[in-house]
Amino acid sequence: MTKFNPVTEELLAELRAVVGDEFVKCDEETLNRYKSDEEPDPKFHHLPEVVVWPGCTEEVAAVMKLANKYLVPVTPRGGGTSVSRGAIPVCGGIVLMIERMDKIIEIDPDAMFMKVQAGARTVEIQKLANQHGLLYAGDPCSAESCLIGGNLATNAGGNKAVRYGTTRHQVYSIEVVTPTGEITTLGSRLKKCSTGYCLEQLIMGSEGTLGIITGATLKLLPLCPYRVDILAIFTEVQKAVNLVPMLVKAGLNPTSIEFMDNGFVRAASDYSELRLPHYEDGSYVIVTVETYNEDELEMKMEKLDEICTEAGATDVVEADERVWKVRRNCLEGSKALSKVSVSDDLVVPVDQIAVCLNHLGEVAKDFKFKIMALAHAGDGNLHFNMLKMDMTDEEWESEVSRFHAIAYPYVYSLGGRLSGEHGIGALKVKALQDYCDPVEMQIMKTIKKAMDPNNVLNPMKLIDASND
Amino acid sequence: MTKFNPVTEELLAELRAVVGDEFVKCDEETLNRYKSDEEPDPKFHHLPEVVVWPGCTEEVAAVMKLANKYLVPVTPRGGGTSVSRGAIPVCGGIVLMIERMDKIIEIDPDAMFMKVQAGARTVEIQKLANQHGLLYAGDPCSAESCLIGGNLATNAGGNKAVRYGTTRHQVYSIEVVTPTGEITTLGSRLKKCSTGYCLEQLIMGSEGTLGIITGATLKLLPLCPYRVDILAIFTEVQKAVNLVPMLVKAGLNPTSIEFMDNGFVRAASDYSELRLPHYEDGSYVIVTVETYNEDELEMKMEKLDEICTEAGATDVVEADERVWKVRRNCLEGSKALSKVSVSDDLVVPVDQIAVCLNHLGEVAKDFKFKIMALAHAGDGNLHFNMLKMDMTDEEWESEVSRFHAIAYPYVYSLGGRLSGEHGIGALKVKALQDYCDPVEMQIMKTIKKAMDPNNVLNPMKLIDASND
Repeated sequence: MTKFNPVTEELLAELRAVVGDEFVKCDEETLNRYKSDEEPDPKFHHLPEVVVWPGCTEEVAAVMKLANKYLVPVTPRGGGTSVSRGAIPVCGGIVLMIERMDKIIEIDPDAMFMKVQAGARTVEIQKLANQHGLLYAGDPCSAESCLIGGNLATNAGGNKAVRYGTTRHQVYSIEVVTPTGEITTLGSRLKKCSTGYCLEQLIMGSEGTLGIITGATLKLLPLCPYRVDILAIFTEVQKAVNLVPMLVKAGLNPTSIEFMDNGFVRAASDYSELRLPHYEDGSYVIVTVETYNEDELEMKMEKLDEICTEAGATDVVEADERVWKVRRNCLEGSKALSKVSVSDDLVVPVDQIAVCLNHLGEVAKDFKFKIMALAHAGDGNLHFNMLKMDMTDEEWESEVSRFHAIAYPYVYSLGGRLSGEHGIGALKVKALQDYCDPVEMQIMKTIKKAMDPNNVLNPMKLIDASND
Repeated sequence: MTKFNPVTEELLAELRAVVGDEFVKCDEETLNRYKSDEEPDPKFHHLPEVVVWPGCTEEVAAVMKLANKYLVPVTPRGGGTSVSRGAIPVCGGIVLMIERMDKIIEIDPDAMFMKVQAGARTVEIQKLANQHGLLYAGDPCSAESCLIGGNLATNAGGNKAVRYGTTRHQVYSIEVVTPTGEITTLGSRLKKCSTGYCLEQLIMGSEGTLGIITGATLKLLPLCPYRVDILAIFTEVQKAVNLVPMLVKAGLNPTSIEFMDNGFVRAASDYSELRLPHYEDGSYVIVTVETYNEDELEMKMEKLDEICTEAGATDVVEADERVWKVRRNCLEGSKALSKVSVSDDLVVPVDQIAVCLNHLGEVAKDFKFKIMALAHAGDGNLHFNMLKMDMTDEEWESEVSRFHAIAYPYVYSLGGRLSGEHGIGALKVKALQDYCDPVEMQIMKTIKKAMDPNNVLNPMKLIDASND
């Protein structure tokens, strides 16, 4: 591992000179607050040595210059909603907060773009677009609390990815501070460009290891005025799962297709204090379709009903707010059953999702943990939730490892990958090293080392660029 | 400039051992054939020392290993249709042909993808997709003669980019030989992925400087069964140009919007031996709209007619094959007027295209060359064609430089870039160095140098990575 220096009084003084006294904190309470993100297990928490709140891009750049000068690691942090330990300062050093840079700079409804700072809240961006009859199509489940900078850094997925793609598809350009503390803008507000390397797509999704994104120009789309949400209930999970490829092929262009197995249906319904039909034995598929005109909506609703019935749905009903409440409470519901759990974020080609859910569901039966499955089924993204319940720590860790040792290579054999939307963070660095094509891994390390020669920007996230 | 070694007998022997005697040629006729691409000016031609035709990815990798061992430059070549000197071996050495690797490996109409080798002809890929009721949406104007590998390397644009994006948007994954001769596959057949750096988008559009693309898995789309092509004729160029943003905003989702000024209308009509209305004074806008159902087509046709009339079109007629013939013959038509010409490929935000065409049209009036304008107007991509006519070489070069010195910074001031689809090649290396943000340029060079430490892969294309 790279040998970093401790944060010294000298560095603190320089940091204060850059961002101002009040925005440099190293009191115990502050350090404790930023030792974790959504990671519940204290074993993986790590205290920073100082937390800084730069107020502008130039200050972010100045902090990176200091980090290189003093050889101190920097962990950039947005809303802290990572479930992959992406915001934990695993090597100590500086936590760099982007939350003060929270402005929406400009919206141009005619040219359909919005300029934002990285600390703007995603939900505010969505709301402002809506007020102008437009859509910002990035929509991670944490939209209420996450910041756009974190969405950009991790290429956040979420609720509308089936139709609109992930965060990287919603972006014209990004303002970036490089690991060595230079400022640049990558990408441009163009529909078409063949002018140099596509660096903006390289930086987005690099999880803050190749640059700190400090701002962006986002694409806006016309808002669909018509929408329907359907809940299809199946008493045979196999039939529910098989619905997905049928929906994809039917050309309905759904905004989302969400799958919940009965484990999640029960846990989330209990947590929500709601009883929907077939609580006891139902698997749920929630489909959202949005259109620009009413005729198209009606046509698609009919088609949707037809396909769900053909697939063997027991009930097909319009999904109201209660259904979405249950869907939103899946994770909280599972936490109520078991404080410790692991939510795995795997992704496979959409046409392989049924086979993957079935196979891993069978595999899981030989394991001691309780398992529940949730899927953004329309984009091939599966979340298996394993619940520790009353297992011992040793048993639990051994069983989870044993499951991963089967599930990860299986997912790769289907053409899938380790993460569909949560990212690698600090959580799956070793797994990525193990399963990634070695030449691809070598290219990633080559680029990381060239762009961040001192390995000070978010070290030990995504890849370990310190050794070999 | 990097100091390369000459191709020696020893290297030739090793190349023959790798790809076979018959696929290594250094006779005069062969070398002459590959000294240029679509660049007509012999001043810019450069002879290779040897041309090799590897038959598989492993052979491409072996050639790259030899290039590094002997410090000899390699210029990969697809169909040789570059108009930016992208396929000219400007440093001599090896020209590496991908044309033997021409197989379409697999089409899966259900999962809607196609696996191809890089030497497959783009038109064959389009045809095969169509035979299955599907669309491969990449459609460069050179589709008849170009190879998919070249399209991928340059992120080719073309006729359908307004609706479907450029080549980089049609791709799930690419097989790549790195500059140091390793083989990997980047990207995956997934709708969503947060597993490592987005290297496939970095390599695509890098114009063969960061890797040789040897194969790809391409996305296919449902084919629109309904289509209409409209020709709107304007006698005032200003009105024609102003139609573009009106069309974009109307939500018609056109497949293409092509603009030709009267200079091109005349030149291409003469060349095609055709007379369409307002040959003498008309500017043409050709709009293509495609739909999945007939009602939608009719609705959009009405809307289209309405908007064109509102914009002040003199005539609005259905565009038949004659219109497309004229459009296709624009470049040949201009060559018939002047053997020497420069076609500039600039791109601006779509909402700036009218102002840009107007401004540069005014600017051009102070120049001695004849100028004609063509635009893929729906995606902001402008082609200004300057004709040398009977100017002296000195005058011509000075006038073109003078125009560029005004046009390039102007385009950047609008948020535009030097190339929308032709790429930088060897043609605009200096211009990119001059106008690119210096930090962005530095990152490009850092990555190039890290991935290609000997600078043997396509040196002096896109960037000059040999100095500083």
